[in-house]
Amino acid sequence: MIGLEEKTVASRTIYKGKVLDLKVDTVTLPNGKTTEREVVVHRGAVAVVAVNETGEIVLIKQFRYPTGKILWEIPAGKIDAEEVPQDCAVRELAEETGFGARKWQHMATFYTTPGFSDELMYVYLARDLYTDKREMDDDEFIEIHPVPLKNATEMIKSGEIADAKSIAGILLASLRIEAT
Amino acid sequence: MIGLEEKTVASRTIYKGKVLDLKVDTVTLPNGKTTEREVVVHRGAVAVVAVNETGEIVLIKQFRYPTGKILWEIPAGKIDAEEVPQDCAVRELAEETGFGARKWQHMATFYTTPGFSDELMYVYLARDLYTDKREMDDDEFIEIHPVPLKNATEMIKSGEIADAKSIAGILLASLRIEAT
Repeated sequence: MIGLEEKTVASRTIYKGKVLDLKVDTVTLPNGKTTEREVVVHRGAVAVVAVNETGEIVLIKQFRYPTGKILWEIPAGKIDAEEVPQDCAVRELAEETGFGARKWQHMATFYTTPGFSDELMYVYLARDLYTDKREMDDDEFIEIHPVPLKNATEMIKSGEIADAKSIAGILLASLRIEAT
Repeated sequence: MIGLEEKTVASRTIYKGKVLDLKVDTVTLPNGKTTEREVVVHRGAVAVVAVNETGEIVLIKQFRYPTGKILWEIPAGKIDAEEVPQDCAVRELAEETGFGARKWQHMATFYTTPGFSDELMYVYLARDLYTDKREMDDDEFIEIHPVPLKNATEMIKSGEIADAKSIAGILLASLRIEAT
């Protein structure tokens, strides 16, 4: 059987930015032909499903410029240089919601868009919450809405939650919480 | 309360590609300050959870150049110009797996990475499968593996499936299929 892998022949950096870089690579395909691959280089991110003692999940509403819409999401953010993913999760939960958590569990690590980006996202379940101080980034404007986990699942089914990481994270958390 | 929306002041196209374009916009934030937003412009995509009569889901293994890895995924692909999402889902399922389906249900539409892209993904559940002809794109090399839906959920929990759309799609399909 023919292999699946592709080999890099050349790499051209198109843009180096604040959130992402863009490169266009020339690659050899398994059949020997060459093609170009456009790659968005990203330093990785975290997302947090934070559930309080009454079974509510902390959702946020945030304007997402690329989509032109205000979206319902779980707290999330980019990993800083040399930051460990779980430290980033703790930091982002505090910055975006003002909550801390005494109990952290890693639930999943996945690629958000493996067709065109290397962004890897680490998803955590945070429980045993307490109120921390909230220090948002200069360019973040966020509303916080605790919602019963069951309602969040309904919001996924109805399409009201329309963000991939939030859908994956909430459904993964439901599996874990049902199992305990 | 302060609003959440951001207004475009200027837009600069950095790159126009095969899969994506990149633009960098200058925007006004709700507090009146300005910042830059890097936006990956994408024409949208579909993903398909195809389940056969024995309850197996059709998974694929595919080398994803941006990640440098062979990933387990559900069939998916970019929407062609002026193509309706469901037609794209039918086309991609046939191209990537050789299966057709008599029963189609739209399960969800979500943004894959709303922080830096406008890519919108339409996810379908395909049932009542039949064998169609398989005509892969020139640059696609794919292995097909039918896996019991229960095992696919285990592959998500274990981290073997590490792709956001596949995790969201399979868990959404599980909810639907359990409910029927």
